Amino acid sequence: MAANNILYAQSGGVTPVINATAAAVIETARGYADRIGRVFAAADGIIGALEERLVDTSSLSDADLRALAQTPGGVFGSCRYKLKSMEENRREYKRLIEVLDAHGIGTFFYNGGNDSADTANKVAKMAEELGYPLNAIGIPKTIDNDLAVTDNCPGFGSVAKYVAVSILEASLDVMSMSSSSTRVFIMEVMGRHAGWIAAAAGLARREAHDPPQIILFPEVAFDQEKFLAAVDASVERHGYCSVVVSEGARYADGTFLADAGSTDAFGHKQLGGVAPVVAEMVKSKLGHKYHWAVSDYLQRSARHIASRTDVEHARAVGKVAVELALEGHTGVMPVIERVSDDPYEWKIATARLDDIANHEKKMPDEYISDDGFGITPAARRYLEPLIRGEDYPDYGTDGLPKYLRPELESVERKLPDFQPS
Amino acid sequence: MAANNILYAQSGGVTPVINATAAAVIETARGYADRIGRVFAAADGIIGALEERLVDTSSLSDADLRALAQTPGGVFGSCRYKLKSMEENRREYKRLIEVLDAHGIGTFFYNGGNDSADTANKVAKMAEELGYPLNAIGIPKTIDNDLAVTDNCPGFGSVAKYVAVSILEASLDVMSMSSSSTRVFIMEVMGRHAGWIAAAAGLARREAHDPPQIILFPEVAFDQEKFLAAVDASVERHGYCSVVVSEGARYADGTFLADAGSTDAFGHKQLGGVAPVVAEMVKSKLGHKYHWAVSDYLQRSARHIASRTDVEHARAVGKVAVELALEGHTGVMPVIERVSDDPYEWKIATARLDDIANHEKKMPDEYISDDGFGITPAARRYLEPLIRGEDYPDYGTDGLPKYLRPELESVERKLPDFQPS
Repeated sequence: MAANNILYAQSGGVTPVINATAAAVIETARGYADRIGRVFAAADGIIGALEERLVDTSSLSDADLRALAQTPGGVFGSCRYKLKSMEENRREYKRLIEVLDAHGIGTFFYNGGNDSADTANKVAKMAEELGYPLNAIGIPKTIDNDLAVTDNCPGFGSVAKYVAVSILEASLDVMSMSSSSTRVFIMEVMGRHAGWIAAAAGLARREAHDPPQIILFPEVAFDQEKFLAAVDASVERHGYCSVVVSEGARYADGTFLADAGSTDAFGHKQLGGVAPVVAEMVKSKLGHKYHWAVSDYLQRSARHIASRTDVEHARAVGKVAVELALEGHTGVMPVIERVSDDPYEWKIATARLDDIANHEKKMPDEYISDDGFGITPAARRYLEPLIRGEDYPDYGTDGLPKYLRPELESVERKLPDFQPS
Repeated sequence: MAANNILYAQSGGVTPVINATAAAVIETARGYADRIGRVFAAADGIIGALEERLVDTSSLSDADLRALAQTPGGVFGSCRYKLKSMEENRREYKRLIEVLDAHGIGTFFYNGGNDSADTANKVAKMAEELGYPLNAIGIPKTIDNDLAVTDNCPGFGSVAKYVAVSILEASLDVMSMSSSSTRVFIMEVMGRHAGWIAAAAGLARREAHDPPQIILFPEVAFDQEKFLAAVDASVERHGYCSVVVSEGARYADGTFLADAGSTDAFGHKQLGGVAPVVAEMVKSKLGHKYHWAVSDYLQRSARHIASRTDVEHARAVGKVAVELALEGHTGVMPVIERVSDDPYEWKIATARLDDIANHEKKMPDEYISDDGFGITPAARRYLEPLIRGEDYPDYGTDGLPKYLRPELESVERKLPDFQPS
């Protein structure tokens, strides 16, 4: 290792367990007090790092760290901000190195998804080019489960558990009401480009007659006629129909079923609201009474129903990231490697950021059933271990989880102001 | 008691804990094997009772009853079907008595809300008029918390806990993203006429600077200008704004912000989709990036985050209902009486259905803060005990709750067919 402080930053959409990774980084670093100095965190992710807005985690007590590991969202703040290529924007990469240098930081952990792996990789390369001794390490995190190399992404398992439990519960509700009231229930889940989260809802369908009867994946072109026929068949057979629709569901021509029209900082379309569109089809074409839900942020912040497996993954990548830094690695990411499905065994391996950045892991075709509305045994074999086990947060006497909102001391600034582009 | 079998029926919208009541009824009845025969349940609520579609709960094992008590929805089926007045529809009341008589049933438990209390009351009166010895007893249940006399309604506490935990978690998410992305999060909750559920979300706001910053109650006429000013003030001050909107939110002239236009069997309007309406206002008038969620059935089936207090209430009313029958009561309902707020103490009392049927408990004005956007300390004092404690369901090795879907034997029919009107 070079300079002995650490900078940890969170990036992109947060997850129910990203803070478990943060807690593991801090705890592990404290175990190497002879070799590691302070663990700083960037306020609001990479933007805070560029603006030299850092906080010092030293004041967090052991109890705080326990609470931190149980808190959803990103406690230090995250951001959607993608650094341009080094050719276009050397200025920002250089500024990052200056900030690190000013604060004696020899290790930079960037906890995020695809875009963040790319950024961490470029920071590693820039440090090398400038001759600044740095361990720049990506740490995986994304509910989208679309990172290459790693078997799965911390954050996804808990969202998967939330959607599987939620559709199971809501289906029991509609099932009990269907004789005289609601017959079709539609739940919208996240997943812009890939149906990983939608597929996870399929875990609730343990037997053929179980709900959800229909999953609408982004990977399968939406065919209204076929969909309505399937809804009707389910209502005919079971008395009700439980539907899960991915926000990324689209027609054969690529048009999203719902498209809010606005775009985020990465140029991604901001989606939402496909459930009411599907509900309206069911109502107008079939006349069934419906209910619909859009879980949106609820699904990606539901730490109260986190998967224990997911929490363990999230902690493990944080711990190993520190160990990789101590071993002098840079431009790498600790990833989850599946050793076996049954019994489920896994370990942490090391991957090069070059192999991860800007690759997107698609859901395999063989995970979607032939009719396009469900998941296959292969998908179940992959997904099920990821939602196993519960890991409940501690609750206060007021009936609410004791989530942490730490007030951390800001690190004194040493550099002139900087305006991210 | 008269004939020694029991008929138990579920009514109206189900709850996360209605089956806990059912389990308590069955367990308690089994403890009086010398005086009570079989516990039958009506399939699909009162419709099944009229059609003589009964199931026998005798085959449920102790393990089944434990699982039953943890299962959301209504396992025997519920329905939205309101019997007309006795003058208009003696035929159905008489049919009910015939069904009870045919199966040696001396006790009828109707587990529901306002409409069901009215039905149970009329069944009691009709039995008396016909000289049929019957204990007709209402058992309270409704997430709407709008039953008179009882301090609160089983089912509400768990929904309250779900919405308070969910808005807390989602707010931590938006808080971490607000520097560069989503600034306003809107969560829609149930509550057609009263803001009880919306108020419960206010429990997450333990300190003045905590979310949710804005609650839109059905009780407070929606004023767009004032609302948008409050959103802007919160974004200005906290960097984000977390909003909870009741499905029943309406303008001063009574128009709902969102109105799907269809009506259910009780003539209630089917609402849903106010969150996107509010989101659109925020977007078009203020330009903030938003996200919205509609929890719909998810909130009322979320047994995985049930309130232990609520589960205890649900079990207690089931137990006492059986005891009231054994004591020969009819036309009554076991209700929850609050003995003290702090420490929270409660007991089960007995109320006359005459005092409950067709009354609606409104949320007191003094529960809503002066600005109309929050709850008062009085509301917190009332609500907080109801979400205290956790009562997790058992999970299988597949990571999902072990909810029960019993296959019960149908009771052999003895009467001619009957067509409910």
